[in-house]
Amino acid sequence: MTLPLLASLRPEASGAPASGIVELAKYARTSGDDVIQLWVGEGDLPTPSFIYEAATRSLAAGETTYTWQRGIPELRQAIATYASRLYGRALSAERFFVCGSGMQAIQIAMTMVAGSGDEVIIPSPTWPNAPAAAGLRGATPVFVELVHGNRGWQMDLDRLEAAITPRTKALFINTPSNPTGWTATREELAAILAMARRRGLWIIADEIYTRFVWREGMTRAPSFHDVREDGDRILWVNTFSKNWAMTGWRTGWVEADPSLGDVVENLIQYSTSGSPVFIQRACVVALERGESFVEHQIAKARKARDIISAAIEATGRCRFSRPDGAFYLFFGIDGVTDSNAAAMRLVDSARVGLAPGSAFGPGGEGHLRLCYLRSQDQIELAAERLAAAIPQL
Amino acid sequence: MTLPLLASLRPEASGAPASGIVELAKYARTSGDDVIQLWVGEGDLPTPSFIYEAATRSLAAGETTYTWQRGIPELRQAIATYASRLYGRALSAERFFVCGSGMQAIQIAMTMVAGSGDEVIIPSPTWPNAPAAAGLRGATPVFVELVHGNRGWQMDLDRLEAAITPRTKALFINTPSNPTGWTATREELAAILAMARRRGLWIIADEIYTRFVWREGMTRAPSFHDVREDGDRILWVNTFSKNWAMTGWRTGWVEADPSLGDVVENLIQYSTSGSPVFIQRACVVALERGESFVEHQIAKARKARDIISAAIEATGRCRFSRPDGAFYLFFGIDGVTDSNAAAMRLVDSARVGLAPGSAFGPGGEGHLRLCYLRSQDQIELAAERLAAAIPQL
Repeated sequence: MTLPLLASLRPEASGAPASGIVELAKYARTSGDDVIQLWVGEGDLPTPSFIYEAATRSLAAGETTYTWQRGIPELRQAIATYASRLYGRALSAERFFVCGSGMQAIQIAMTMVAGSGDEVIIPSPTWPNAPAAAGLRGATPVFVELVHGNRGWQMDLDRLEAAITPRTKALFINTPSNPTGWTATREELAAILAMARRRGLWIIADEIYTRFVWREGMTRAPSFHDVREDGDRILWVNTFSKNWAMTGWRTGWVEADPSLGDVVENLIQYSTSGSPVFIQRACVVALERGESFVEHQIAKARKARDIISAAIEATGRCRFSRPDGAFYLFFGIDGVTDSNAAAMRLVDSARVGLAPGSAFGPGGEGHLRLCYLRSQDQIELAAERLAAAIPQL
Repeated sequence: MTLPLLASLRPEASGAPASGIVELAKYARTSGDDVIQLWVGEGDLPTPSFIYEAATRSLAAGETTYTWQRGIPELRQAIATYASRLYGRALSAERFFVCGSGMQAIQIAMTMVAGSGDEVIIPSPTWPNAPAAAGLRGATPVFVELVHGNRGWQMDLDRLEAAITPRTKALFINTPSNPTGWTATREELAAILAMARRRGLWIIADEIYTRFVWREGMTRAPSFHDVREDGDRILWVNTFSKNWAMTGWRTGWVEADPSLGDVVENLIQYSTSGSPVFIQRACVVALERGESFVEHQIAKARKARDIISAAIEATGRCRFSRPDGAFYLFFGIDGVTDSNAAAMRLVDSARVGLAPGSAFGPGGEGHLRLCYLRSQDQIELAAERLAAAIPQL
């Protein structure tokens, strides 16, 4: 009875992949309260009260009805002001479209540029939701593996270009990268953009970790904003989740040329039909008054990166380099070929839950992903446990 | 510069239709504060405090992180309990999947059953977002017009079956209907289900207005739940928006056979990746403690329906019958062929904003849609103004 139901669904839907982290997460969650949960991409702080209290006030004021599909004007302006400051160039509020999470921003961007018969090039290892979003549109994700060498994860631009076919419609560029920490230089972004212009491709730019950058003297990672010109085919996807500890708020934004505004608005209309006003009020406060909190988050991640990197290096058993950006350590362990099994064993032996690299596409197997946006106490404990357990793997 | 950007988008995206209500809404909103806003499908009450305070408590408790893709277990159980009572049969929590609005439920259901090359049959006049969602999947919406006669809007089942082709994958059945108020009988639902079984089609059942039913002695409209058996190809879409005055919360649910749970979960993962926990807490309270509020809403709509229907009838100029369900009056005015122009003129002359019938697909032109989920004072004022203005149109 159930087989016919599943079998009668569209292949894009029934073929949408399950998360490769689920098995590990279920195992770790049922293995005891002392397991340190480092497999998920979020910090250990709840949303600060000065942010969520704006939502509370909005609810009490009765802001509980339908609203602007593109986002309330106050939030679009607050994003524009924030982005203009961050990128050092004037960006109009007309470029920004509030939507129901960074994931939904990716879904909308994929819908705009890729569909049945198309190909989308995605550097890998990658956050698996990007290729899944392409697949749901009927497009084929084409992976180009990053190269891991002495300077850490690197993009081979010739390989990137060699992957382009007449069916290619877009490049999905995530920098700083989840899971690898690969962080494109300005020169690399200029070269990728030149390639996209030359070949008539769209770029979907996922720069959500841009503030989490560890190169000397940088306050944000290089961005396509640094090299773009009007008319370039670039869509940015972004989220409130990481900077402001708002993973549970499911709010993000698309940035696009204002000439595409009606299309983005329609795609929001036919997805969630807009975001709750009371949530948007909190997002305004996050942008306008959240700077010291974001700086606190960044300082915490920087310290945690150093602690956990030193411990992993000291094992002498791991292939990895300190990441340039984002807040993940993505490392290989000598002799480990089944990362899911290794992650399970580390739950047992180290009481630390890590995400298996196999979840992150080609090039990921054999690695583990560790989220280090954690308190110093917790990361020191995890470092100590992993240092003891990894040599026994 | 802007033309090439738009022109290089996927046709499903650039071709997604704008709402046919936008022009009227913009005109009415800028025509003065005294215009009564009856073009949108929501009531005039904010969310009750006993509901939103659950969200406030959840925020203060730090429930601001990632959560279950299918919805928190407490909410899935609360929906199951509510639905079991409403439909008079035991429905397991495993059937219910929380998502980011009724609209997103439709998007997910369409993704499951329809794609490129497929056809989805939609009775019309219809809420335009349903055919738009089909179009965004690359499927073709095929409209079957309801017939308007002495007994109001009626479905011609032979016409429905005649519209089925080898490409047909699904029937989208909205009962009680927005905008017409058409409310299927149990016998009609049984016939539609038999047809779907015979032809191997899915049914997407949109029964969100089921509690707003005006037939004598009914407390809810007939439902596919009354006629279904296990293994039937039915997906239900639903929302918290209407019953509990939560339009701005963007939360709804999909109901599906539990064997499809992994697919629905993956589609939620790749849409918004779950709904905010603090919102779900409020939804639990709505279901568990909201019954008297819902009854108040229904009683209010029933009274308003009678007031506005009597006034429209008394003009002697309108083609319509009192709707059997939902909270809209969908009526034609003798001599009106351009409903958008007529709606604009009524903003000027009656100070009442109605939605033009042209926004609701084939069979809609020449009609106007009026939402009557309003206070008695407001609906009496609107009735008086329309009664004076319609004869002058």
